[in-house]
Amino acid sequence: MTANGEIAFSLEEADAFARKVLVACGLAADHAAAVAQTMVSGERDGCTSHGLYRLLVAANSVARGVVVPDAVPEVSEPAKALVKVDGKGGFAQLPFELGMPLLVEKARAYGIAAMALNNVVHFAALWPEVEALAEQGLVALAFTPSHAWVAPEGGTKPVFGTNPIAFGWPRPDRAPFVFDFATSAVARGEIELHRRAGKAIPPDWGYDADGRPSTDAKAVLDGAMRTFGSHKGSALAAMVELLAGPLIGDMTSAESLAADEGRGGSPIGGELIVVIDPAGFLGDSLDEYLKRAETMFETIEGQGARLPGSRRLLARARSQVEGVRIPAQLHADILEILERGN
Amino acid sequence: MTANGEIAFSLEEADAFARKVLVACGLAADHAAAVAQTMVSGERDGCTSHGLYRLLVAANSVARGVVVPDAVPEVSEPAKALVKVDGKGGFAQLPFELGMPLLVEKARAYGIAAMALNNVVHFAALWPEVEALAEQGLVALAFTPSHAWVAPEGGTKPVFGTNPIAFGWPRPDRAPFVFDFATSAVARGEIELHRRAGKAIPPDWGYDADGRPSTDAKAVLDGAMRTFGSHKGSALAAMVELLAGPLIGDMTSAESLAADEGRGGSPIGGELIVVIDPAGFLGDSLDEYLKRAETMFETIEGQGARLPGSRRLLARARSQVEGVRIPAQLHADILEILERGN
Repeated sequence: MTANGEIAFSLEEADAFARKVLVACGLAADHAAAVAQTMVSGERDGCTSHGLYRLLVAANSVARGVVVPDAVPEVSEPAKALVKVDGKGGFAQLPFELGMPLLVEKARAYGIAAMALNNVVHFAALWPEVEALAEQGLVALAFTPSHAWVAPEGGTKPVFGTNPIAFGWPRPDRAPFVFDFATSAVARGEIELHRRAGKAIPPDWGYDADGRPSTDAKAVLDGAMRTFGSHKGSALAAMVELLAGPLIGDMTSAESLAADEGRGGSPIGGELIVVIDPAGFLGDSLDEYLKRAETMFETIEGQGARLPGSRRLLARARSQVEGVRIPAQLHADILEILERGN
Repeated sequence: MTANGEIAFSLEEADAFARKVLVACGLAADHAAAVAQTMVSGERDGCTSHGLYRLLVAANSVARGVVVPDAVPEVSEPAKALVKVDGKGGFAQLPFELGMPLLVEKARAYGIAAMALNNVVHFAALWPEVEALAEQGLVALAFTPSHAWVAPEGGTKPVFGTNPIAFGWPRPDRAPFVFDFATSAVARGEIELHRRAGKAIPPDWGYDADGRPSTDAKAVLDGAMRTFGSHKGSALAAMVELLAGPLIGDMTSAESLAADEGRGGSPIGGELIVVIDPAGFLGDSLDEYLKRAETMFETIEGQGARLPGSRRLLARARSQVEGVRIPAQLHADILEILERGN
């Protein structure tokens, strides 16, 4: 334990620790490896809410029967440039890993391709997926619904999930340009943190169950969150529902929440990933145009503005040297899972 | 002329009038037909800023040599699921029309396809394009940069264009679900209107040339506009630059503004359209899942919230019965083009 009550891990130790815990929860070894990698990536990149803390969330989903811990995903090709992975109710990470090589192959063969992950349980951010694809030199977009917690602009009743959009762009000789954000005004976890701390939330984050704007975190959790960016954010939230729900034969956020039956598990449903090979349009001009994109990034950073994802990459560089640290209390809570086997 | 100083047209009359004016400007007949259709669609749908008023804008672009009025677009297939149309410096409408059949064919054949329009001049909204694709039963996304007028979040100097995103979704037995919005906080034309009226703008629309938030419309037009939705809108604006600029071998908004050389023409550059065939993922379940999407739309409208595009469809229904009306002064200004042949 460090002086300020934190537990330190190297990234390798964190990965081994997370795997051990997940296997103790009942996850099959391949699922545990894929899920651990995502959680350690989050911790490494300073996204603590998507880091090792999620071991508790994953354990809860297993304990409540929300996730199939040893699901065997099935990869298929519904059309020439489409990949479908039926996750069979397991976590999303392994299905993504299993489908990704075929997705990359198809994007390179056809110029563009898409992959649907169906029937998967989602607890993580989308950036690890688009980043992995951008690291292969591809441009990637990802979308997923969640649970119906967010009201459309002009209404006050939940319809949408927090419905994130992620985007990855390959950069020569450096980490890809990656963003990933919820189309809700804030993350649901942010409201949860205010509730725990007994703190008021800003009046434009959501509505109570009677449809009145509220500064009471619990009232908004029980009512409806708002989207970011007014009617534009609301339109994007609807798009995410459609693209990663009905379009791929999977659930909307409302259907997913209903399927949870009050167990409070992570959302189950689908994810859509669209991949474009820049070499498709660019051919021999690939390098020239990737350089033009770099010029745009320089114009942004040159005026002191931050690129999306830059804070994550800074945290990553630090973690790769110093490892990661988690609060002693969180460590103790995780050890408890290890002891009781769930 | 009507009692309140407006000139009335049936939709057919408006189309014939617009074609005649465009041909008088020097546009080749096929370009004039495609451009007229887009302008009349805008007027019909109550988007007057993208309606017949744009005849003046198009005439200006021709007069200043920004657009090639008789360009012969060239359709090619850089990869199996990609279509590229080189617009050769002409307006975007004809290249879209010429490339669309192949794009639709590829989307149906591969499940997903994309089309780049390159070297085209843009004066119109993107919704006519995604709507035309959704009317074919396809899901469509469209992106285009413009001129560098918009600052990234955290900065105050222009990098992005107004960079719209449009989305179309097919609905059984009714007009598609369509949205189309700029990723800037407001349309540039909105600030222009404030400038003409000598009215102050809200302080969060943009910055003056010294990087200070300003309520002076002219100062912001000469400085930088802001994106909508803070860092999330800014991330999307960057994505649009990348997708419809470097990815397709075309200009960024900064490059396009530089290419204009102060002529004040409409932006020249590229557009990316991504199309997914819902039957690809859904097969025999297509109807079932399109119905599930309808359930989501009902949940939105059932609580009194408006779907994006609903105002446009109301205006359309009215125009189809009553025709359209334009201010007498605008009509006179357009007639002047007709007389002087430009």
